[in-house]
Amino acid sequence: VEKAECEERFWSARVARLATVGTWPHLVPITFAALGEETIVSAVDDKPKRTLALRRLANIASEPRVAVLADWYEEDWDKLWWVRADGVAEIASADDGAKLHERATTALRRKYGQYADRAPLGPVIVIEVRRWSGWAASAALACAHRPV
Amino acid sequence: VEKAECEERFWSARVARLATVGTWPHLVPITFAALGEETIVSAVDDKPKRTLALRRLANIASEPRVAVLADWYEEDWDKLWWVRADGVAEIASADDGAKLHERATTALRRKYGQYADRAPLGPVIVIEVRRWSGWAASAALACAHRPV
Repeated sequence: VEKAECEERFWSARVARLATVGTWPHLVPITFAALGEETIVSAVDDKPKRTLALRRLANIASEPRVAVLADWYEEDWDKLWWVRADGVAEIASADDGAKLHERATTALRRKYGQYADRAPLGPVIVIEVRRWSGWAASAALACAHRPV
Repeated sequence: VEKAECEERFWSARVARLATVGTWPHLVPITFAALGEETIVSAVDDKPKRTLALRRLANIASEPRVAVLADWYEEDWDKLWWVRADGVAEIASADDGAKLHERATTALRRKYGQYADRAPLGPVIVIEVRRWSGWAASAALACAHRPV
């Protein structure tokens, strides 16, 4: 139940933050969707000229371990919570991973009406979740920790 | 002007996310305040029994390079923005860095009324910003990038 609660909060979030590792940790907000129960997908809105032009993609290519965080803030701190997914990322472009790219963009378009006007054409980041963790100020929100 | 706009948005945010690096990138939401123009402070709410018991503190002890992200999400994607501070972190505990700890917790209590009831007693993370970056969907928000 606790694990389900964590994951439900995570998947319901409209925005998350992706941390990748390079010389410096790199951190950007992302839109994301679920592909199955344990896979996060996120698109790069613009199509970069080279797949690894964006820092997050270059980082993933050399270090696939990433973290994705969804959190809730409001001034009543009793309502704070966060859920983090630690996972292993790969990149699927429309060219070299056509099927995966299509499934991922379909999931993103289903979640976000905003993509109707601007289909995500760029590479897609596909993250297999290896571990969920979470915390809530005033609720039991102990995610199942599975060793990685 | 652009750099000032970036920093104003960043400092006005009520929550940010801190990325540190260990075996895996580690990512948590944080409250934070300014100590001068180029220093971010953030407190660990509970006083851990050992200073390095928390993952973020252990990570900083072995790799001080961190990133802090403030972002804005709403369903109108023309209003999205984010600002990231890449910096070098150190830890100040109430014991071994008393003066710095006191200045940091004062800054945090000034920003957050919530700390009135629960003064941050635990270690404080002090981050010297080395580089600002930022993006906004519909505004010029090119932060000055200073090489690190």
